[in-house]
Amino acid sequence: MDKVNLAEKLAKFSDHWNPRLVATLDDYEIKLVKLRGDFVWHKHADEDELFLVVKGGFRMDFRDRQVELGEGELIVVPKGVEHKPFAAAECQVLLLERRGVVNTGDAEAVELTRDTMERV
Amino acid sequence: MDKVNLAEKLAKFSDHWNPRLVATLDDYEIKLVKLRGDFVWHKHADEDELFLVVKGGFRMDFRDRQVELGEGELIVVPKGVEHKPFAAAECQVLLLERRGVVNTGDAEAVELTRDTMERV
Repeated sequence: MDKVNLAEKLAKFSDHWNPRLVATLDDYEIKLVKLRGDFVWHKHADEDELFLVVKGGFRMDFRDRQVELGEGELIVVPKGVEHKPFAAAECQVLLLERRGVVNTGDAEAVELTRDTMERV
Repeated sequence: MDKVNLAEKLAKFSDHWNPRLVATLDDYEIKLVKLRGDFVWHKHADEDELFLVVKGGFRMDFRDRQVELGEGELIVVPKGVEHKPFAAAECQVLLLERRGVVNTGDAEAVELTRDTMERV
């Protein structure tokens, strides 16, 4: 029941595409992640996924369009929808998704996959 | 799948203790609310509840302690734990909780109860 300071938690790591767990709510996980460059195309068959920009900005690519997000903006990617985040410069993001969701979804296991998660 | 700009949504209303729905994720709701003054003591028997400060600050009172929260800080109130938010000045907050959670929890229906929710 302690509070979480997002900036303090974000200062504890510097790598990209490697989410850290900061809180849980029922069966859901609140994570922080730093984005830079291109992720892989993927989808999550059964779970929606929320991205909230804490600092910077990034672009969410869908197969048919792109959405630019800045600080204080969020997007929910619905289950089953292919997406690929891209950040030209480092972007700090709060993620919300059901426990157990793997970051690369249905993509073949790749270098970017994180199926265990450190709590910071 | 449109993005949500928190500041834009928050500019659409000015009353206090009256959450507005801005997005859904699986069976969960993301809401925005403006706090000012004292809420009522209550708990939610079966649901955790997340508060993230978007602007300003507030104090979460528990029966045995108080937690001061500022911008960029979040707290998850676990199911079953009595709490009461208090904001000396207006505070803008993002809420996350399971669909159907009533803001006043187990408190007797009071003036502050909102069991329907406008989407902004």
